[in-house]
Amino acid sequence: MKALTYQGPNSPPQLLEVPKPETEKPTDAIIKLKYSTICGTDLHILKGDVPTIPSGRIMGHEGVGTVASVGAGVQSFKEGDSVLISCITSCGICEFCKRGMYSHCSTGGWQLGNQIDGTQAEFVRIPNAENSLHKVPTGVDEKALVMLSDIFPTGFECGVLNGKVAPGSSVAIVGAGPVGLAALITAQLYSPSQLISIDGDANRLEVAKSFGATHTATPDKAVEAVKEITGGKGCDTVIEAVGIPDTFQQSQELIGVGGTIANVGVHGAKADLHLENLWDKNIAITTRLVDTTTTPMLLKLLAAGRLPAEKLITHKFKFGDMETAYQTFGKASQEKALKVLIEM
Amino acid sequence: MKALTYQGPNSPPQLLEVPKPETEKPTDAIIKLKYSTICGTDLHILKGDVPTIPSGRIMGHEGVGTVASVGAGVQSFKEGDSVLISCITSCGICEFCKRGMYSHCSTGGWQLGNQIDGTQAEFVRIPNAENSLHKVPTGVDEKALVMLSDIFPTGFECGVLNGKVAPGSSVAIVGAGPVGLAALITAQLYSPSQLISIDGDANRLEVAKSFGATHTATPDKAVEAVKEITGGKGCDTVIEAVGIPDTFQQSQELIGVGGTIANVGVHGAKADLHLENLWDKNIAITTRLVDTTTTPMLLKLLAAGRLPAEKLITHKFKFGDMETAYQTFGKASQEKALKVLIEM
Repeated sequence: MKALTYQGPNSPPQLLEVPKPETEKPTDAIIKLKYSTICGTDLHILKGDVPTIPSGRIMGHEGVGTVASVGAGVQSFKEGDSVLISCITSCGICEFCKRGMYSHCSTGGWQLGNQIDGTQAEFVRIPNAENSLHKVPTGVDEKALVMLSDIFPTGFECGVLNGKVAPGSSVAIVGAGPVGLAALITAQLYSPSQLISIDGDANRLEVAKSFGATHTATPDKAVEAVKEITGGKGCDTVIEAVGIPDTFQQSQELIGVGGTIANVGVHGAKADLHLENLWDKNIAITTRLVDTTTTPMLLKLLAAGRLPAEKLITHKFKFGDMETAYQTFGKASQEKALKVLIEM
Repeated sequence: MKALTYQGPNSPPQLLEVPKPETEKPTDAIIKLKYSTICGTDLHILKGDVPTIPSGRIMGHEGVGTVASVGAGVQSFKEGDSVLISCITSCGICEFCKRGMYSHCSTGGWQLGNQIDGTQAEFVRIPNAENSLHKVPTGVDEKALVMLSDIFPTGFECGVLNGKVAPGSSVAIVGAGPVGLAALITAQLYSPSQLISIDGDANRLEVAKSFGATHTATPDKAVEAVKEITGGKGCDTVIEAVGIPDTFQQSQELIGVGGTIANVGVHGAKADLHLENLWDKNIAITTRLVDTTTTPMLLKLLAAGRLPAEKLITHKFKFGDMETAYQTFGKASQEKALKVLIEM
């Protein structure tokens, strides 16, 4: 089969002919991909930010497909079923899974395109299939569905839920990339009063407005803007969806007394925490790797037409053009790209 | 009346003759002090760490006394009532109070010995008396009760509640000063399995053991010890009760996946936050200025004999010896001092 393979740090990934995967454990399933996409994390991998990934690894952790075969222990899925693949594979029964932390599953976590071969291929092996796949509800657009492998649960769980977005509250979202926008869309499930999108890219701020941001600001004006919008109080929730020290620092200037900074960004370096200002402000800072525990709920919303997930897809490529797809996604600002859909 | 007054940074406080306070608003009460104590924060003030405090300010925010007079709006207290004074004065009805954040009350907060004259005096004026005083339950030791003005609600609210101590959980408390010990005592209300006290002072670690610590460690051995005790997982709760960058840094090395670092310490400087390690660990970091919302509950525990508050009192002084009391408390380690009781 054809698969997009990692070739080590700072080398372009290559579309190669590789062996088709087979079930290795009774709890595995083999999925024939219909759609996949590229994540910001894939770009991090190409830069060498995840040095544990070996050359030759098939990339990707997002996808929708059809069950090709299942191991003897898989009861809930059968050949031919249309399924959504969670970016997190998990057993559902270990100590961490019982606590809702599928991302720290003792036999799972972020495995796809990382510890094992991923979804940017014609076929993929999904371990712990029972808890890592979701049946596609009738009538759901399978292209839009790919957005539920990672970015929607990530924005929702790490941003909105951890950030305790609540009716009437004020919310700032730092970063209007795909995950920041997924947080912006799902934050509205909890009816905040102010929803402020912050990004340096004018196009993304326009997109944020179209997705329901009540206010937008560029980073240089953000502190001033939030002060004015919140009557000097700062926000109840700040969602950090970038992942660099500067944006984490700014989040501390945007938060109000009693508020929560929900970190979503993938950080490669430490950041300053200004405890001399924050020690007495009754705030919380949270971190989280997406657990995908809310995927069933998000599926219901998508099926009900309440999640404009398809609008995040700005570009479409055939699988044979994967290398071009990466180039486009790598110049996201210039290309006005949010998510690129890969059709197998 | 006699009162201990701040004399500016790095000057010893002085016991001076000053005018007796009078009610200024209908919601005020005047309390004749029976007992007071000295807080670590008072030492910070003397070093000049709270530069907004003017010379001449009467110090102190802890105390127990008798109501001398009340304003026309005070209905719940009358002359002669024995009362505990909360370190936080609050109206109970503003936006922040309604959210349980008395410490950020729009007409209150940490006022005593800071924005207004405090409790290290024969008399003190308490604003918002209805919500800032507590009747002394019958049979309660009024000396022990002084520990409920600040250190017990601080250790409990900022440490135990914010840190989500739960049955069977593992808890590390960094710092075994009076507030760290109050956290250690009140953490046991929630039945953790491991309760690890960390401090550089051997005497304080012994005291921690006597108060129920299941393990103790010096800071240089703490990371290794916690690894061993928790089977390599790290703690569910880390309570930071020191307030310097080193201890906050260490707290990040002690926390386990899904855990909470509850900051209690008063910080004067920023600290490094290692988001490159923590971004995907599903942790929370909380800060809080004590709200004293749990004081009524703590009073019930004290009345029921469930809070060994009196054991934190290591030294007793007459009010006339206040200056000596400060010297003793200032050399806490050498003097093996925890809390010094001041008898009026």
